[in-house]
Amino acid sequence: MFDYPAGHRRASHKTSTANIQRSSPKKKAATRYGSRGISLEERINNSNQYYLAQNIAVIHKKPTPVQVVKVDYPRRSAAKIVEAYYRHASTTDYNGVYQGKYIDFEVKETKNKTSFPLANIPEHQIAHMQNCYNQGGYVFLIISFSSHDKVFLLPFAQLRKHLDHHQQQSLTYEFIEENGFECPQVIFPMIDYLEALENYIDTQMMGGCSR
Amino acid sequence: MFDYPAGHRRASHKTSTANIQRSSPKKKAATRYGSRGISLEERINNSNQYYLAQNIAVIHKKPTPVQVVKVDYPRRSAAKIVEAYYRHASTTDYNGVYQGKYIDFEVKETKNKTSFPLANIPEHQIAHMQNCYNQGGYVFLIISFSSHDKVFLLPFAQLRKHLDHHQQQSLTYEFIEENGFECPQVIFPMIDYLEALENYIDTQMMGGCSR
Repeated sequence: MFDYPAGHRRASHKTSTANIQRSSPKKKAATRYGSRGISLEERINNSNQYYLAQNIAVIHKKPTPVQVVKVDYPRRSAAKIVEAYYRHASTTDYNGVYQGKYIDFEVKETKNKTSFPLANIPEHQIAHMQNCYNQGGYVFLIISFSSHDKVFLLPFAQLRKHLDHHQQQSLTYEFIEENGFECPQVIFPMIDYLEALENYIDTQMMGGCSR
Repeated sequence: MFDYPAGHRRASHKTSTANIQRSSPKKKAATRYGSRGISLEERINNSNQYYLAQNIAVIHKKPTPVQVVKVDYPRRSAAKIVEAYYRHASTTDYNGVYQGKYIDFEVKETKNKTSFPLANIPEHQIAHMQNCYNQGGYVFLIISFSSHDKVFLLPFAQLRKHLDHHQQQSLTYEFIEENGFECPQVIFPMIDYLEALENYIDTQMMGGCSR
């Protein structure tokens, strides 16, 4: 666990992040360089640890579902699984709570420079996201374009709109840039997707919609 | 999957359940009898399926976390896990969204007639529930007293109060009866814990508190 800077609520979190950016540009640059070897999933998990430690949000990755077929008990204390298979997740990978609200998202990465292939998101995940959206949760994709070193939060409502009106089996980079919200990549947290979510919520509020 | 009766929102769900109870008492009795062989977890999962099918809530059990040590690839299509171990869950087993709100709970059963031993709830689960509660989620235990054939929803706030003021390592049945909310056991859903949650929310509203 990192020794995170002090802070308590979302407002002070913003301030503390800003302070870090101003006061230690060298450290920031070093961390950005160092993050190149860290997977997107690790960076999101790391961000969730930060949000948790700062009391900003409680968001966890769900365990990968495994179908256990055979278990041995070589010692009384330790059950050893000796035959099991990965199963397809019926939901998205991440969910949790942020200021009382339900948060649900899937994290995807592409090396493609111009588009994000929708084949990356199975039909049952879309159905799950739709259900959570219908229940009033904040539902989105986090899409990383590694070639651009950019990470976007794409609200489910935008994805839904595309699916309803277009035949293409991919989202263009321009579409995501226009309809998504860029996630700042800083030190704490490494990918500040809740900042992007706040920006999305702000635009919704201005439009007279709560989500 | 059951062929659930029609309905769309919480209000109509209540109505439809009431209708079933009135119109088919025989079916209800048969189901109650039949549920004796069904585990508590299965009945909760079954209730979640009902809530999902009726668009009442989206609540899932998280997969059991497994530490995979060795994987074989006997065929290209199927990865076979040949060494793995169960890990302790860092969170509770169930979470999801109900009317935009985050829901988080743990399900426990006891054969004890007079009390529920707190040793059933590890420290890290209490910490997780506290974090979710602090974020404004609805957090609770579902405790089944199989000897009484009763299931209660105990709000985390009540559990917290007990932990803060008492040394006993168990909750008495009377404490849970007084501070908890009984979950109706009907056909659809088998354990209507959202009805109990609604009753809890109602008392909170009357007390001028939102949770």
